Amino acid sequence: MSHARVLGVLGGMGPLAGATFMQRLTLLTPAERDQDHIPAILWSDPRVPDRTAARLSGGEDPLPALLRGIAGLEAAGCGAIAIPCNTAHGWFEPMQAATRLPILHIVEAAADELLRLGIAGGPIGLMATKGTLAMRLYQARLEGRGYDCLVPREAEMDRIVMPAIDLVKANKVSESYAPLAEVARRLIERGARAVVLGCTEIPLGISAGPALPFPVADTIDALARAAIAWAKPAG
Amino acid sequence: MSHARVLGVLGGMGPLAGATFMQRLTLLTPAERDQDHIPAILWSDPRVPDRTAARLSGGEDPLPALLRGIAGLEAAGCGAIAIPCNTAHGWFEPMQAATRLPILHIVEAAADELLRLGIAGGPIGLMATKGTLAMRLYQARLEGRGYDCLVPREAEMDRIVMPAIDLVKANKVSESYAPLAEVARRLIERGARAVVLGCTEIPLGISAGPALPFPVADTIDALARAAIAWAKPAG
Repeated sequence: MSHARVLGVLGGMGPLAGATFMQRLTLLTPAERDQDHIPAILWSDPRVPDRTAARLSGGEDPLPALLRGIAGLEAAGCGAIAIPCNTAHGWFEPMQAATRLPILHIVEAAADELLRLGIAGGPIGLMATKGTLAMRLYQARLEGRGYDCLVPREAEMDRIVMPAIDLVKANKVSESYAPLAEVARRLIERGARAVVLGCTEIPLGISAGPALPFPVADTIDALARAAIAWAKPAG
Repeated sequence: MSHARVLGVLGGMGPLAGATFMQRLTLLTPAERDQDHIPAILWSDPRVPDRTAARLSGGEDPLPALLRGIAGLEAAGCGAIAIPCNTAHGWFEPMQAATRLPILHIVEAAADELLRLGIAGGPIGLMATKGTLAMRLYQARLEGRGYDCLVPREAEMDRIVMPAIDLVKANKVSESYAPLAEVARRLIERGARAVVLGCTEIPLGISAGPALPFPVADTIDALARAAIAWAKPAG
């Protein structure tokens, strides 16, 4: 594709998150007809090796597959890249070094979403994969902006959060709602002012049930808003 | 992408239909983890000129943009192409002539969906764009399989169906439910045994409200099932 600002989306991690990102990108774009929407290419490669396993238990390195996707999106004519997978941002620097295209950072988008929700600092809850937590992808960036991250306890991660993420990847989305909502609620009880859904499977589960009665930063919507701001900069 | 069967999706017509196709492709695929899902590339170019306007009122020819998308998907390593836009199938033959990749035909997929619903012949309702109806994309193929197509009256097309399709393209999805459901109900009253939602915006609107109390063939799901059968042929 040529001429307009074409968004490249490195998805497939998981595939439902990438597809839902495309849906939210569309629904959040001000448009009256097809031709007002943002041209985009979704590279949905669910074969990318598991990111948490690579970081924590010696699993296969996902970087070569990530770089193949970025090269494919660049060759197809994209002007920027969005990656609707938080854990993949653990390889942000080598991905950015490998392309001349700007990569929108999902943690920066999440921080902007917290501001949009009126949460300018203080304790916030952080739900993410074990890989994302271990790499401190959020903690390092959010502490610099005045937030303190409360994370689930190790037993909650092992017994509730990671199994719920796996339910979403296995298409059992509605079953993941109750466990994910329960952990979010506990983080609020422990003092969080809002909860960042810092793994793109988590907002899919949380959207499958009643809205939570406290602010949540959905990283799919946050990245979609960042992409729209890139594609359609305000006059 | 290489090695596996990678699906190419020529989307953007409209973009919400293409994104929802990717979501339904994921949810209908038997999978326990990311790596079980089907690799796919969605080429979402909402700038493709309006298909109905091209066919009925001398609007710009969409074929060059369609062929650019197909060439892009072929260059990216796809092995087959699905096009979640019914009206674009009016250009099926020149698209198929321009690529060595098989293009899955959405009308054949819809006919298979009718059989899956247990409707093997007889009168069926057909809701589609004016372009799709005028090109007889469905009538020509379904009559050969023993179906008779009941279509909305011209005033219903102009005052209800086409405006409702435009509501979906303008992100006003829930507003489109009532008018689309009403036309589907009228087709059943006139004798249809089922209604084919033969424009990919229509199932988006119909999904935004209560399930209809009669069989409908959703062409997004139908095409997703055809794509899964291509990517994962039964042993």
